[in-house]
Amino acid sequence: MLNTISCVSHNELSATHIKAVKVEYYQVPLAEVLSDAKHGDHTCFELLVCRIYCQDGTEGVGYTYTGGKGGRAIYSLLDDELKPMLIGRDASDIHAIWEDLGWHLHYVGRGGLVSFAISAVDIALWDIRCKRLNLPLWKLAGAASNKTRCYAGGIDLNFSEQKLLKNIDSYLDRGFNAVKIKVGKDNYKEDVARVAAVRELIGKQTTFMVDANYSMTVEKAIRFGRAIEQYDITWFEEPTIPDDYEGYGRIADSINIALAMGENLHTIHEFTYAIRQAKLGFLQPDASNIGGITGWLKVAELAYAHNLPVCSHGMHELHVSLMSSQPHAGYLEVHSFPIDVYTTRPIVIADGLAIASDEPGTGVTFDEKLLRPHLIKQS
Amino acid sequence: MLNTISCVSHNELSATHIKAVKVEYYQVPLAEVLSDAKHGDHTCFELLVCRIYCQDGTEGVGYTYTGGKGGRAIYSLLDDELKPMLIGRDASDIHAIWEDLGWHLHYVGRGGLVSFAISAVDIALWDIRCKRLNLPLWKLAGAASNKTRCYAGGIDLNFSEQKLLKNIDSYLDRGFNAVKIKVGKDNYKEDVARVAAVRELIGKQTTFMVDANYSMTVEKAIRFGRAIEQYDITWFEEPTIPDDYEGYGRIADSINIALAMGENLHTIHEFTYAIRQAKLGFLQPDASNIGGITGWLKVAELAYAHNLPVCSHGMHELHVSLMSSQPHAGYLEVHSFPIDVYTTRPIVIADGLAIASDEPGTGVTFDEKLLRPHLIKQS
Repeated sequence: MLNTISCVSHNELSATHIKAVKVEYYQVPLAEVLSDAKHGDHTCFELLVCRIYCQDGTEGVGYTYTGGKGGRAIYSLLDDELKPMLIGRDASDIHAIWEDLGWHLHYVGRGGLVSFAISAVDIALWDIRCKRLNLPLWKLAGAASNKTRCYAGGIDLNFSEQKLLKNIDSYLDRGFNAVKIKVGKDNYKEDVARVAAVRELIGKQTTFMVDANYSMTVEKAIRFGRAIEQYDITWFEEPTIPDDYEGYGRIADSINIALAMGENLHTIHEFTYAIRQAKLGFLQPDASNIGGITGWLKVAELAYAHNLPVCSHGMHELHVSLMSSQPHAGYLEVHSFPIDVYTTRPIVIADGLAIASDEPGTGVTFDEKLLRPHLIKQS
Repeated sequence: MLNTISCVSHNELSATHIKAVKVEYYQVPLAEVLSDAKHGDHTCFELLVCRIYCQDGTEGVGYTYTGGKGGRAIYSLLDDELKPMLIGRDASDIHAIWEDLGWHLHYVGRGGLVSFAISAVDIALWDIRCKRLNLPLWKLAGAASNKTRCYAGGIDLNFSEQKLLKNIDSYLDRGFNAVKIKVGKDNYKEDVARVAAVRELIGKQTTFMVDANYSMTVEKAIRFGRAIEQYDITWFEEPTIPDDYEGYGRIADSINIALAMGENLHTIHEFTYAIRQAKLGFLQPDASNIGGITGWLKVAELAYAHNLPVCSHGMHELHVSLMSSQPHAGYLEVHSFPIDVYTTRPIVIADGLAIASDEPGTGVTFDEKLLRPHLIKQS
């Protein structure tokens, strides 16, 4: 690594310096139990909101989320470890702060929970930057477009085939022209049957992906992948554990379906290795756990340099702006955790495309009345 | 990954089932400020103790530590996330519990803070196993020996050359015949001068290592490495960021000093990649952050299979037993965080070798009177 040359003075407080940081922790129940192959049943998601206030009163809102575990530890990282580092810093110095927070917690970091906490801070700082420039995030992050292709990502492994198809129908009714289902049944032939049934339902024109949540061995993933090639699958997501880059490479060499991953890669370096060795067709960074917007854009640049489309995972109310901004965007995931329902602007879809907000900021404003009943803890 | 076949019944409670879990969080001040190249100044270490009680009253004590940051988040993981998973489990099922905890927190895990928390639990379960079998850890973990080569690991980058040499002298007085110093000054020629001065002080017979705490670029590490080859250096630890396995490989190809790393690798898979690509001479897993004794032994087996010596980082009061047990042990680090001073058996060194405890259990019993003043929080 390079030693950075510090040119930041902490002595003079101006309008853009950070005056206060507040943290909120919510547990938001899901309307029904959602299951995948490795995380089991989801009954709620955890939402950590980080509010950063500048001397001049500007407020930036950042956040991260989990599938229901670890949220209190992220709260501690935000409140106990990161907040004291932020007070008095110039909120404009996003990249310097990003580096400093990462090194500060490096011994207990290098991905994991620390990446989630830094993400919430970074998103709040970008919100402030966008508001100061009076620009929406899609303009500031790249401005390639204000809309992006998208797909509905089901968490539906526990659904009966009948319910699975009914759920897919509801996606088509909402205007989606791309859908993803979970796979990873003990007997992969059940998965093949579900894939066949969904393809029959959606017809030839609808884009279709599958996601195994790393539940398969390399050998099983290859057998399953070959069995579903005939159903025109756009990508096979997380066939096996994210750590086994070379295993991904063997799967990619053995089947005629592109591989995708990213939600479980929490450092830029992990993406670097995945690109070199895993032979992915799509990268799926999640701004909530790759170090916020700064981290997501770093991965987007890596993808660009390697001729790969960048996609997203989760928190579509934010990613819609990032994805729209990129010239090499793949597909935005519209995730089954409905964080957007608790904002003032749930996802907007027109002609199968998701439309980014034009409001200055990240475009994500939480509806406090809707969230309040789920508040567990705040600083 | 392979799907595991569950054969564990949770219904029948017996003597070995877990009745209660208690967590303690300490901040232990250091006698003086200790610095390295990337973590800056250490003024204290954090100690998280996890006590597991079985139905029959058997108590297992596990723990982890940090350099002063992230401890409260680990406390939350232990108390909020892991404790509920442990109550009612059979404490004998160490490996099954290790897998279950890892998968339970996988989305926020894969290393990072989760590995620290799981480590504390796993060490407590091994303590119980050893006590039930009435065996010391070195016997149960491998029994190759009850003693191991060791070195004094200084955290001394902020020491003047005079103080550095005085500190090294104190190690020799305590009976050490191997020492390590920190390097990573802005101008590497200062480091070269310090290395030369230490080699002159310790003579030709003393084993000598250096540790840059990943502060260098690959290019700087190669220049520095070449400049100190003449001083008979046993290993060059963490020359650059732990994520850059291929960069380590380039350094290893360019200098005639073995490379070492491990304290920042928190999953077995990271060690797998490091072995394949980083061309290390020594592996240094730390049981406090690689998933406890179970994780440390997995890395020890990997090292064995790849013809590499296994070493350790930190918490020497525990690692002395693990290192002694292994036929391919390298050097135990006797670390500058004096956790052992707060136990009933500080490290024992005779003829330059560290001696493992013969007490049934891990051999680590905290002295509650000494620790009590530093207690911040307990469940």
